[in-house]
Amino acid sequence: MVDIIESKRDGHRLSKDEIEFFVKGYSKGEIPDYQASALTMAIYFRGMDKQETAYLTDAMMHSGDTIDLSSIAGVKVDKHSTGGVGDKTSLVFGPLVAACGAKLAKMSGRGLGHTGGTLDKLESVPGTRIGLSEQEFIDQVNRIGIAVIGQTAEVDPADKKLYALRDVTATVESIPLIASSIMSKKLAAGSDAILLDVKFGSGAFMKTIERAEELARAMVEIGNSLGRDTRAILTDMEQPLGCAVGNSLEVKEAIMTLHGHGPKDLEELAINAGAISLTQAGIAPDLEVGKKMIAKAIADGSGFRKLVEMFAAQGGDSSYIEHPEKFPLAKRQIPIYAKASGYLHRIDSLSVGVSAMKLGAGRKTMDDVIDMSAGVILKKKRGDQVEAGEILAIAHTNMSDISDALEMLENAFVINDEPVPYTPIIHKYIH
Amino acid sequence: MVDIIESKRDGHRLSKDEIEFFVKGYSKGEIPDYQASALTMAIYFRGMDKQETAYLTDAMMHSGDTIDLSSIAGVKVDKHSTGGVGDKTSLVFGPLVAACGAKLAKMSGRGLGHTGGTLDKLESVPGTRIGLSEQEFIDQVNRIGIAVIGQTAEVDPADKKLYALRDVTATVESIPLIASSIMSKKLAAGSDAILLDVKFGSGAFMKTIERAEELARAMVEIGNSLGRDTRAILTDMEQPLGCAVGNSLEVKEAIMTLHGHGPKDLEELAINAGAISLTQAGIAPDLEVGKKMIAKAIADGSGFRKLVEMFAAQGGDSSYIEHPEKFPLAKRQIPIYAKASGYLHRIDSLSVGVSAMKLGAGRKTMDDVIDMSAGVILKKKRGDQVEAGEILAIAHTNMSDISDALEMLENAFVINDEPVPYTPIIHKYIH
Repeated sequence: MVDIIESKRDGHRLSKDEIEFFVKGYSKGEIPDYQASALTMAIYFRGMDKQETAYLTDAMMHSGDTIDLSSIAGVKVDKHSTGGVGDKTSLVFGPLVAACGAKLAKMSGRGLGHTGGTLDKLESVPGTRIGLSEQEFIDQVNRIGIAVIGQTAEVDPADKKLYALRDVTATVESIPLIASSIMSKKLAAGSDAILLDVKFGSGAFMKTIERAEELARAMVEIGNSLGRDTRAILTDMEQPLGCAVGNSLEVKEAIMTLHGHGPKDLEELAINAGAISLTQAGIAPDLEVGKKMIAKAIADGSGFRKLVEMFAAQGGDSSYIEHPEKFPLAKRQIPIYAKASGYLHRIDSLSVGVSAMKLGAGRKTMDDVIDMSAGVILKKKRGDQVEAGEILAIAHTNMSDISDALEMLENAFVINDEPVPYTPIIHKYIH
Repeated sequence: MVDIIESKRDGHRLSKDEIEFFVKGYSKGEIPDYQASALTMAIYFRGMDKQETAYLTDAMMHSGDTIDLSSIAGVKVDKHSTGGVGDKTSLVFGPLVAACGAKLAKMSGRGLGHTGGTLDKLESVPGTRIGLSEQEFIDQVNRIGIAVIGQTAEVDPADKKLYALRDVTATVESIPLIASSIMSKKLAAGSDAILLDVKFGSGAFMKTIERAEELARAMVEIGNSLGRDTRAILTDMEQPLGCAVGNSLEVKEAIMTLHGHGPKDLEELAINAGAISLTQAGIAPDLEVGKKMIAKAIADGSGFRKLVEMFAAQGGDSSYIEHPEKFPLAKRQIPIYAKASGYLHRIDSLSVGVSAMKLGAGRKTMDDVIDMSAGVILKKKRGDQVEAGEILAIAHTNMSDISDALEMLENAFVINDEPVPYTPIIHKYIH
């Protein structure tokens, strides 16, 4: 192991055997944390080439169980977001592609810090089970085309252990390590085609579009080199996605979007991402046809019905989906007013995300309990013209001591005199 | 701690507080190994400036006991070698400077791998105690001017812990980490003036003169910035020092040198290093006078008598020093013959050192037991003209299966037709 650390430290390529030796040894506890952290720091500085990153991903993917989806007929698609604020895309995208005939067998995660997680949103509908067995998971996808569950403990234990170590040794921000961490989980989850939604900006893990593109290209290369049709989109997280931030608030917005009344950016993202997945699945011949199919699944209500069906299949009370007014509202709704007139230049995602967390919508640590009704509803989006005194947003909370959260939310908005040019939600499509 | 790692990772200077936080926390076991190894790897890549290195040294020095030598009158001198093959300099230098009136209160180490250690050499004289109490140590220096003992467990525990970690995480070869490791121990040992013998070449830790100079300058700066008169010499370890390699063989050579019959390079080193120490102690006004004083201590036998006195004071049977023929010889003495005629171009120190270790003179691991009589006696040195069939060296051993060691020893010698220009043992004096 010392030779392996030294080799990487000195800028050499690691071989497949060396990388497998490390991943296996570390997973089994035979290689101590202090050697793993020295190696990851050396990787932080020296990087890894495409081949090494693919070997690392492959080794991590095989450190635990891999899900065999072969008993599901057709191309199995998956979508993964690198995380953001107000990102309820999966709840719109998933039912839409499933309504169009795609098979989506998806493993999701929970929220932490300023970013939300799909599992938490699912659980805002009473009764919803996210812990299906592998057989239940496969059966549900075969039956209705969609299932969204939590990652089981047996999938990719090497990544779990290594990520926890990187978190406390300042070696998180390394493209090959991030790319292999994400992709090893996605590949272990067994889908044939993967669409990566790599977000950039204030509320995203990658702060700049350049870093986001670097990560996206690394992941696309890994996926394709390991035999999966992998594509990526770079999407804007400089402002929150859509208008709702917070668990049941976001589920309601997803429902609205499936009814054709959602925010423009969220709809645009769901339609485009859906179209890409449909072409990956071989259901649509090209993106234009794909977009039309997705738009139709909105217009005819088949996407919405698929969401109802999904919650029902996973034990959720689907009457909440059909009657979203059933979701309990937070006791307090506090408006945030514009301090000046002009154009809304910026809605800082990170500030909105942290503010929502402080209102009760998120977790500071994995042990915190979420208030499903808490969060923020944006009444204006970037580029909107506003008058001083107009409502910019409404904070939803059941807490009393929230002055920090409100101050942060107020400061998230930047208004000035210049009109703001429109920018599309998707900046690039990498395939 | 994550912030500290991240700061160094990103190339920032660490503050005094941050460095102390790390050293204290790590010594106490509050900071785990995996964070320490990530930090040392980040230091490997980013380096540390003079100020940071001095803070690190100071913090490590104060992680345990520091020796108070103030009850010894006069300037206390110390000399430290970075380690090599056949390096018995302390056994010649020490008695000589003490005979000239300097006070040498020295803590030494043991040998490992191809390098020897002064403590092992001392123990080749029966009865010699290297574990004096602090009071015995101080009393002996006050009485006879010299004592050489082992480092106590209470000195510089931070260095012990950190060095062990660096050894298994490929972060040994970092100049600020090496410099602070050596200097924190030397400074804790309490002397006022320190002479560093930084060796370069095949048998040394620093393989090139450039790296050796870099390390020497770093250490001289640390010592001076922390208020000690610190100087360094860069000396040649491309061939073994002197002719003897192995514990009692080296002690006998040290005795010969104190009698004025030692190898030229060893005598030259001892005289020059001694002269520097005498000027540091304020005993000699300049190097020329210092050299004459040391030469006189050889010529009049006072240096030799000081060695006898030192062994006697530490419980050793000093009749071995007066009658070196009492040292038991190894059962087997195997000559190595020149395969060609010409000039001896090279005697690879590393090969000679490893060969001597395999003959029984050294340790592969700290738990191995040393054969005090084993080793190598060189019959020729670099630059000598040799005839094919002449004896180049004699291997001394009590072992039977030594074909590896002999082959390695044979291959250490390179003979060719070109005369070899003389190079002095000391290449540079840094002060």
